[in-house]
Amino acid sequence: MKNISGQIEFLLELEKLKVVSRFNRVIGGARAENSAEHSWHLAMMAVLLIDHSGIDGVDLLKVLKMLLIHDIVEIDNGDVFLYDEAQREHAVSAEQLAAERIFGILPQEQAGELMALWQEFEARTSPEARFAASLDALQPLMNHLITCEPNVNAAQLTRTKVLAKKAFIQDISPALWEVATHFIDRSVEKGLYHDC
Amino acid sequence: MKNISGQIEFLLELEKLKVVSRFNRVIGGARAENSAEHSWHLAMMAVLLIDHSGIDGVDLLKVLKMLLIHDIVEIDNGDVFLYDEAQREHAVSAEQLAAERIFGILPQEQAGELMALWQEFEARTSPEARFAASLDALQPLMNHLITCEPNVNAAQLTRTKVLAKKAFIQDISPALWEVATHFIDRSVEKGLYHDC
Repeated sequence: MKNISGQIEFLLELEKLKVVSRFNRVIGGARAENSAEHSWHLAMMAVLLIDHSGIDGVDLLKVLKMLLIHDIVEIDNGDVFLYDEAQREHAVSAEQLAAERIFGILPQEQAGELMALWQEFEARTSPEARFAASLDALQPLMNHLITCEPNVNAAQLTRTKVLAKKAFIQDISPALWEVATHFIDRSVEKGLYHDC
Repeated sequence: MKNISGQIEFLLELEKLKVVSRFNRVIGGARAENSAEHSWHLAMMAVLLIDHSGIDGVDLLKVLKMLLIHDIVEIDNGDVFLYDEAQREHAVSAEQLAAERIFGILPQEQAGELMALWQEFEARTSPEARFAASLDALQPLMNHLITCEPNVNAAQLTRTKVLAKKAFIQDISPALWEVATHFIDRSVEKGLYHDC
């Protein structure tokens, strides 16, 4: 029971990710989307869109593990708004500490595996991490478009600013980039981003 | 773009699973747990507990796909309380219709793959389906124990009734069954089930 008790403690800890709020809403607008259901949505995207990963032989199991764990560090630090550069810079070292604390709950071998996967995701150098990161950039566009009320743009986002943040998708997968620009165009039409 | 437009339509449809309420709460009690974050939690359990699947050579990727999709049919029908036998009986045919509608949004090949996985999960005959089902039975015990207020037992559940519902775990994995009975014992102590 030594191993399993650490695993169960970790799984109990994960309950906290269900109450980490993101910056988009769920359908109906009653509450913010949370990081646990966001991670599920990304995992479903990976299952379905693996053929658009931009590279042959991508390891889907590795992508899924990465996406399932990629936001666990937010348990300690919360989600950071994509366009808040200062806050994102500050979050890097805090997230490293969170990863050490949270993955450290697990038996040593699994702690090491998950920490390595999280670091690989953050570095965005492997094909799996690049595909995972492109899905993580695409999902909020889709979510924001369908859950945000028309003409709400509290952060005063512009098409140019959003395109710049998402442009790396183009280098990974032309098909996913086409989807991303489609969502951005529709969001501009809906008044969620200024047309400039 | 033919394939990808069906895939995107399906991914938009999945937003609805985030607002399907389950019968347990999240930490803090502010709202019900939903079926999307529940599915994420199960996928994390599979990643961590695969060595306790009770059989060698279980295909983790298949288990993950099963768990990620297993509740998608609830988009049309909602979640059914585990102990409401009449309602569960009634749900079987409705869930079949839901699976046809929702998976049918996808390109034919993926629709077929996901439908087959969902049916395999429901049948609980393959090692992957049995392991997935045991996690699906274990997670609510864990979640209920830590999120429910002490001495709340609206459904008048007893230890015997809960043990009977969960007993199939014992045949799949002695290790997971030990965890399950631990949670049930602690839940009785907390007053969530009557001690009989």
